[in-house]
Amino acid sequence: MTRIVKPATVRREEILDCAQRLFSRQGYDATSVNQIIVTLGLSKGAFYHHFSAKADLIEALALRFADDAARMAQPVLDDESLDAFSRLSKFLASMRDSKVNAAFEVRNTFEPLFRPENAALYERVEEALFGVVRPTLTRIIAEGVAEQTFDTSNAELAADTILGLMGSTRRAVTDLYAARNAADFDRAACDLVERYRYLGTVVDRILGLPEGSIVLSDPQTIRFMIDTWRREETAA
Amino acid sequence: MTRIVKPATVRREEILDCAQRLFSRQGYDATSVNQIIVTLGLSKGAFYHHFSAKADLIEALALRFADDAARMAQPVLDDESLDAFSRLSKFLASMRDSKVNAAFEVRNTFEPLFRPENAALYERVEEALFGVVRPTLTRIIAEGVAEQTFDTSNAELAADTILGLMGSTRRAVTDLYAARNAADFDRAACDLVERYRYLGTVVDRILGLPEGSIVLSDPQTIRFMIDTWRREETAA
Repeated sequence: MTRIVKPATVRREEILDCAQRLFSRQGYDATSVNQIIVTLGLSKGAFYHHFSAKADLIEALALRFADDAARMAQPVLDDESLDAFSRLSKFLASMRDSKVNAAFEVRNTFEPLFRPENAALYERVEEALFGVVRPTLTRIIAEGVAEQTFDTSNAELAADTILGLMGSTRRAVTDLYAARNAADFDRAACDLVERYRYLGTVVDRILGLPEGSIVLSDPQTIRFMIDTWRREETAA
Repeated sequence: MTRIVKPATVRREEILDCAQRLFSRQGYDATSVNQIIVTLGLSKGAFYHHFSAKADLIEALALRFADDAARMAQPVLDDESLDAFSRLSKFLASMRDSKVNAAFEVRNTFEPLFRPENAALYERVEEALFGVVRPTLTRIIAEGVAEQTFDTSNAELAADTILGLMGSTRRAVTDLYAARNAADFDRAACDLVERYRYLGTVVDRILGLPEGSIVLSDPQTIRFMIDTWRREETAA
């Protein structure tokens, strides 16, 4: 049997595509590295050249997801006509949407990250994502301070604090994952909406903006999540 | 050989005292459950009746430490003459001091909590500590809102956010632990001071207080830490 030798980057993407497909369809636990190898007709060596364990696949998928999200946010960053406030609003909304989407649409893939035993992996992933986002957020905040729209004594710590706040929705997201019936899910979704609403007011204050400037809560997105969840539950 | 049968609570405290002494003296890694058993002249069964693994000892020590801290803070909570602002200031300062002390004075005991592989344990401990502190903090904030000293739309989320902020110093504390020379230690200590200073201004804003009301940074405590660290390094 002749194996087709592909460039390493192509191979890596194929492995990630396959892993994401299998995780989404049958869940993380039910998917084995071996199944991925067999599905792709790979040698074990080819797989382990790229990834040392199944957990590495989640980390890589999360980072790929973050890269996509960063690409989606790029026009906002490049748009010279935006002032720092509009840039920040759009940037935070795109972060929230990425997070909510990741939490929901691809929840079979990322659900394992939210389990207590995977706390170290969650933190590795979060730290990697924050590493991508922090410099951008710091730059936007520093711009706003220069424009005298924002008022904060330390743009970098402001960015770091805001990221930490976005991360503080983790428990509400964990509750969404854990919901086993519509009532639990609604409760967790409402909690998430209220948290985002409150965090919006905290970000306003951190940056010295008038109350209600930053809107993180988006009932539409949450409504979409609830509807999809219900449809899937009914179909299941 | 006759084993002395002691009340379970006394035995449990003895095990914790012994574990803390050994962890502090020789470090967590170098201490085995067996050494604790031998030191106390216990049966294995007596030990495992109370704790299922070495990691449980850290969790229990952290909670005991938190109980001590809560006891230390009790007079502040009971003092009827204090307004909500003074109560909050004193309460946050006592939390910070407990944390800094835990991070430093008993660092051989708690250092393992700050290792990436122990992230799940760290979170279990943090969640347990926050569970103790959250209701008290919520109550103080609600008092301040009632007194119209504080201005926040949700006392519980305000408390939760402030706790999250206190938790966000974790990386700076981790850097303190990781410092291998005086320059690294000074840098980590300065970072921690600056973080606490900045977080003080964030708490001011979350509660609608004038800038500079909440002072979390205490250069004296940090100076004490640096001096002690230096002394120990020189002695080592």
